[in-house]
Amino acid sequence: MSPVVPAAVEAAREIVDPVMREAVARLDPITARVAAYHLGWADAAGQAVAHGGKALRPALAVLSARAARGGPDVGADAGAVAGAAVELVHAFSLLHDDIMDGDRVRRHRPAAWTVFGRSEAILAGDALLALAGELLIERGTPGFVDAARALARTTRGLIAGQGLDLEFERRDDVTLEECLRMSARKTGDLLACACSIGATAAGGPGPLASSLAAFGMEAGVAFQLADDLLGIWGSPEATGKPVLSDLRARKKSLPVVAALTSGTAAGERLARLLALPGPPAEPDLRDAARLVEEAGGRDWAETEAKHRLDAAGLHLDAVDMPADVRADFLDIVLSLAARDR
Amino acid sequence: MSPVVPAAVEAAREIVDPVMREAVARLDPITARVAAYHLGWADAAGQAVAHGGKALRPALAVLSARAARGGPDVGADAGAVAGAAVELVHAFSLLHDDIMDGDRVRRHRPAAWTVFGRSEAILAGDALLALAGELLIERGTPGFVDAARALARTTRGLIAGQGLDLEFERRDDVTLEECLRMSARKTGDLLACACSIGATAAGGPGPLASSLAAFGMEAGVAFQLADDLLGIWGSPEATGKPVLSDLRARKKSLPVVAALTSGTAAGERLARLLALPGPPAEPDLRDAARLVEEAGGRDWAETEAKHRLDAAGLHLDAVDMPADVRADFLDIVLSLAARDR
Repeated sequence: MSPVVPAAVEAAREIVDPVMREAVARLDPITARVAAYHLGWADAAGQAVAHGGKALRPALAVLSARAARGGPDVGADAGAVAGAAVELVHAFSLLHDDIMDGDRVRRHRPAAWTVFGRSEAILAGDALLALAGELLIERGTPGFVDAARALARTTRGLIAGQGLDLEFERRDDVTLEECLRMSARKTGDLLACACSIGATAAGGPGPLASSLAAFGMEAGVAFQLADDLLGIWGSPEATGKPVLSDLRARKKSLPVVAALTSGTAAGERLARLLALPGPPAEPDLRDAARLVEEAGGRDWAETEAKHRLDAAGLHLDAVDMPADVRADFLDIVLSLAARDR
Repeated sequence: MSPVVPAAVEAAREIVDPVMREAVARLDPITARVAAYHLGWADAAGQAVAHGGKALRPALAVLSARAARGGPDVGADAGAVAGAAVELVHAFSLLHDDIMDGDRVRRHRPAAWTVFGRSEAILAGDALLALAGELLIERGTPGFVDAARALARTTRGLIAGQGLDLEFERRDDVTLEECLRMSARKTGDLLACACSIGATAAGGPGPLASSLAAFGMEAGVAFQLADDLLGIWGSPEATGKPVLSDLRARKKSLPVVAALTSGTAAGERLARLLALPGPPAEPDLRDAARLVEEAGGRDWAETEAKHRLDAAGLHLDAVDMPADVRADFLDIVLSLAARDR
């Protein structure tokens, strides 16, 4: 599967990328090197490489600034800076999550902590988080200050979501509702922020930002569902991770929890299989994937994702914005939900 | 040694503590629990305990707000909020540093990561960093926005310092100048920020904040020198850590590097001792401490600390402020330099 990158994403990258690079250049050389690797700008030796990141969240931030102001040129600075800040927070969370989860592969490359060390990766994540706030604050307008507040609140949400995720790994009684709540924090909050922060930074009206945030929240959970489906049935080419990786890591992803809590015989067999001690064998992983499907976990996740996208569309319909901005929003969100992050 | 806590510190704690507790209460329960333990408010089970932290940095922030405005009541909010923000950044850096450095004891108690796990401690540190920015931004006045910028820049400095510290652990050719530069980032930057952020948040004049920052920078390096002396010769009661702990961890602290680069026979013997493989034996540790002293490392550090305190005093003399504020500043800084953090 070779994903098509929406045109708005390419356009946004051109204006967001310089802001991010200027920000990362403020860091000390040691931390900047880890950050540049993690962001896909450089290889492990520090040599520049073709840019790998997809920058979907920055594109949403840029669109949200355009939604507030009307034209592609108006509010360009608000969109670019807000987009860079959101992407820096996203990068921070991936960097730290990979350490916590022990994930060794990120975007088809060794995760930063496996290359530079855990301590260096913790530090680089800290630096990216601090930079994100700094970028917004230093603009100093009321819109940017509001945007900085929104991003700080969002960061708390991300952290709460990751905290639940860590807790769920140790529990065998996680409900589907708890799991959805965790996804709303871990993925929904940042998408909600990405879809509204540009409007906030540009000084747009509060109701516009609220509707865009609601749109982003639904889209974010749809995206998480799509991501969880890929974590079981996605090809390594699409996900950048080994096949069946979420099952190998015994991740309590949404389709898995839907299957475990389905009350079906397949769900019970899945629970027994996942409870086996030691690293899971390949045939067991394939059995587990089959049982998730048999217990209805795959169907549930696909249907739920569709419902979430429908709900997102309704929130978008509720606000007034230029037709091309609306079309670009939908284009990006559908591409997000349809494939790998 | 039972340290005397300056009166200004006790007074500051009373106004800063509620701000910090309100902030931490915004966190999800999992993260809030780790934070409350690390901040000395609760035991590992979450039960409230008598407050252990000394809150010297918040006290400096409160004083700096008073320096800008004159009286103990004017600018109280600026001082309290700025003090809370600085202390949250300090707590964040200690939480993450303990993980990176593998330090298992903090303030006479098991370090948070040994109690709650590395991942949970990483997350709690992230949360404290995000909260610090949020507290300042949400006040929204130009002074608080400037304070938020200053704190973000300071955080970059702290990260740069810790990055150098990690690098130095792997090198055996660290110069004394490099080591001093690292201390300026790792300790000086936060003290400089603590001493000036209240004035900035209160909307005080730029030159006042600059002079207070310069005062804090010198005091911070003096404090680091005192801390490094304690890391070798301090009693466990004073430091909350095992005796000779910095030598046991082969830490390239300032007195050690001064000895190693002294060009003396004792310095060379120290280098050979520290290069021995495996965990150091107790008699070797005592030999190492003696060699640091013989090579002049202890004398150099004590003299340098005195010079730094003198320089700090000159910066303080350069600004106009109420006599009681000046006296409290000196009182705190002397108590900082004279003992454990």
